Amino acid sequence: MVGSVGQASMDLREKVEPLPEEFDPKEISGPADSAPNGILGSGDGKNREIVLGRNVHKMCFAINEPEADDEVTGEREAYMASVLARYRKSLVERTKHHLGYPYNLDFDYGALNQLQHFSINNLGDPFIESNYGVHSRQFEVGVLDWFARLWELERSEYWGYITNCGTEGNLHGLLVGREVFPDGMLYASRESHYSVFKAARMYRMECIKVDTLVSGEIDCKDFRNKLVQNKGKPAIVNVNIGTTVKGAVDDLDMVIQTLEESGFRDRFYIHCDGALFGLMMPFVKRAPKVTFKKPIGSVSVSGHKFVGCPMPCGVQITRLEHIKVLSSNVEYLASRDSTIMGSRNGHAPIFLWYTLNRKGYRGFQKEVQKCLRNAHYLKDRLKAAGVGAMLNELSSTVVFERPKDEEFVRRWQLACEGNIAHIVVMPNVTIEKLDTFLNELIQKRSSWYEGGKIPSPCLAADIGDENCLCSLHQK
Amino acid sequence: MVGSVGQASMDLREKVEPLPEEFDPKEISGPADSAPNGILGSGDGKNREIVLGRNVHKMCFAINEPEADDEVTGEREAYMASVLARYRKSLVERTKHHLGYPYNLDFDYGALNQLQHFSINNLGDPFIESNYGVHSRQFEVGVLDWFARLWELERSEYWGYITNCGTEGNLHGLLVGREVFPDGMLYASRESHYSVFKAARMYRMECIKVDTLVSGEIDCKDFRNKLVQNKGKPAIVNVNIGTTVKGAVDDLDMVIQTLEESGFRDRFYIHCDGALFGLMMPFVKRAPKVTFKKPIGSVSVSGHKFVGCPMPCGVQITRLEHIKVLSSNVEYLASRDSTIMGSRNGHAPIFLWYTLNRKGYRGFQKEVQKCLRNAHYLKDRLKAAGVGAMLNELSSTVVFERPKDEEFVRRWQLACEGNIAHIVVMPNVTIEKLDTFLNELIQKRSSWYEGGKIPSPCLAADIGDENCLCSLHQK
Repeated sequence: MVGSVGQASMDLREKVEPLPEEFDPKEISGPADSAPNGILGSGDGKNREIVLGRNVHKMCFAINEPEADDEVTGEREAYMASVLARYRKSLVERTKHHLGYPYNLDFDYGALNQLQHFSINNLGDPFIESNYGVHSRQFEVGVLDWFARLWELERSEYWGYITNCGTEGNLHGLLVGREVFPDGMLYASRESHYSVFKAARMYRMECIKVDTLVSGEIDCKDFRNKLVQNKGKPAIVNVNIGTTVKGAVDDLDMVIQTLEESGFRDRFYIHCDGALFGLMMPFVKRAPKVTFKKPIGSVSVSGHKFVGCPMPCGVQITRLEHIKVLSSNVEYLASRDSTIMGSRNGHAPIFLWYTLNRKGYRGFQKEVQKCLRNAHYLKDRLKAAGVGAMLNELSSTVVFERPKDEEFVRRWQLACEGNIAHIVVMPNVTIEKLDTFLNELIQKRSSWYEGGKIPSPCLAADIGDENCLCSLHQK
Repeated sequence: MVGSVGQASMDLREKVEPLPEEFDPKEISGPADSAPNGILGSGDGKNREIVLGRNVHKMCFAINEPEADDEVTGEREAYMASVLARYRKSLVERTKHHLGYPYNLDFDYGALNQLQHFSINNLGDPFIESNYGVHSRQFEVGVLDWFARLWELERSEYWGYITNCGTEGNLHGLLVGREVFPDGMLYASRESHYSVFKAARMYRMECIKVDTLVSGEIDCKDFRNKLVQNKGKPAIVNVNIGTTVKGAVDDLDMVIQTLEESGFRDRFYIHCDGALFGLMMPFVKRAPKVTFKKPIGSVSVSGHKFVGCPMPCGVQITRLEHIKVLSSNVEYLASRDSTIMGSRNGHAPIFLWYTLNRKGYRGFQKEVQKCLRNAHYLKDRLKAAGVGAMLNELSSTVVFERPKDEEFVRRWQLACEGNIAHIVVMPNVTIEKLDTFLNELIQKRSSWYEGGKIPSPCLAADIGDENCLCSLHQK
């Protein structure tokens, strides 16, 4: 019986009709020993080994074999509807309290509901037609053109595609770099996204970690030293347009200058990881310009971050000439195999196309300005309340003292690293939301530190003396 | 003016208000020279170099900067609505005529519409909780449990995640293999999916192509010879549970036996690429069983194929012990970085959970039986009409003479290779649809070959003498 939600995850296998001989579930090792414990429960009897972080295996909506009469009674449908309704409620709640991740949750794609039930797949290269007709390449190419224009690469000279996430962009950009310089060494600041180091491992590239400044930017002095030590091999460089934790923007011009001055003229490939700020930077005054008029090889940006999209996605733009290198020697394929993934989500390009078309360059510019304004507001209010905080000039990421209570961190979905937490101010983060957060933080904090009797931690090493407000650095 | 659809893609930049100084579109190289030519037109003036296949850059829905008064007039909304309505119509048409790709287009996810506007992201490892609260890990783990049970791996001993597509599954499985045996050589039959060879290149693994039988299965005699020549290094083997073109299933038991007899006991890792048939095989009588009770390391399957899902996705299951190898040495991460992608689509797990829960093992079994029946019907009718055709015993992929007319191929979205085309009979492919296709093919074919005056091509090399119906092999 599936009728009662409380019993829903009960193991039904003892009751179901035996399956035909070629598939007998009794032969299958599984959680036969599990005790039912409510919708969320599907405990496995044994303790699963926990490897770093909190293992959530026990939090799962189990899939149970339908009863033979389920279609008649409708009980299964009712059970599933109840799971989904509860889940929806939790999503509403979790979406409301969300500050730590750079996802713009402010979008309305109602007009696209009509397309949701199609299996849209942009198999392989967006510029090569496939016989699979249910695709959205027309939208994808439109989006790519928009980004190529933003980053100043001629339509006849660029290649790109819409990826599944920022990681895929980095995997692609660095692979292109490696194919252009097979014996190149990878240089990346230690505050680069972890996918950069994952790429190095996957691709068996030698990887050199470069130090960072307190701001989170790459330290070009250290970069120069490391280049000089490895003059024999070309350099493949990951440049961060907004680091994950501090939102720091590496100085692209100084990186290029350092390379050239260290004798790497024509022997380097630069990939710009613009996961978050790749789309914001063009609209910020004084920001170093990301453009293919400079000697860069590729730029990637996430689509679900600043643009906002119900599923992760990203945009990858590179030079067409590099793709020729990547797709040479592909004797086994009648087509060009130039994407990391094969089947590709065809809905994401339509979401992006829809937003870009509605907002335009000007719309984004307005939103960027709003985010920067709100980020300054947050930083100022934090510091006024005695909380150490930092905001990089070109960034909407506010870094501050890590809240002492993990429950509070989870409630607001803050991303933390060591002593610091951050809030990425996206278009959906309003002053009202920030005020609610600030008021709650200030109140809680007063109890954590007993109104100042217990000293708050020193953050000078993380955010600099001038931003730290511990008893030592407070002026 | 965006009002007229015909003029919609006209370059508007000459008319828009100048953007603020930090972003001047005039500085941007772009398609300023393009001539408007209807919705689909956004010709770029220059000829883009065409590299293999048909370049579709000219087929694109351009994104134009909104007019200043667009919000007032509503013209932009109207334009976009018209593009979407036309596109929807074309999707309906293209979905109807679709036979070549193994995507089950028969699904109804209406109940999930309520979740579409949430930004659901299952960042990283499904078993490690992230602070980002808008996820669907509970559903994902439920789906993974279901598959682990199907392939007979204890809940406490498996690890897995929901991928973006079959390619990601292969990339993951082969990466795990390489990390387990860093100096291992990759063996894959030449009819393996191209992502296997892409992985070899990405991962810098030595790759040995093994011959195939006419059926498309791996030739274990050739496999043995190649193993013996490379005894010094461990073997990482890709086993196809359904090849892309012929739907051939490699004989897993014979592959294992060959490895053991060639002295590779304990020095091999097997990844099973079950993109399509990984989910069908368990329900087919006489099929070699894919199970972790045999010495295999990982299995991957696509979620958008047999299950059906509006976006590409897949399931990857491996042994927990291997993941420990993969995630060692990850000093830069506070968490376990064990997935290929970082941000992961949280909607796909819900779609899969929904279908698995509704259909259950028994539901899938019924559908598999229906597909096999319909595939036999198709093959029999083709041969009765004098068209050379082959259907592997464990498969629903019917391979047959490539239609002579490319327009016909495109209309039915057939995948072709050399002299052959194939139809993958999925649950949404009904007898009626097959009849429509067959009648059309038979009629067209009669004109292509002038009622038999022109001989049809010999397919013996592709599908075997016994399946070829050319004048030489016809009995």
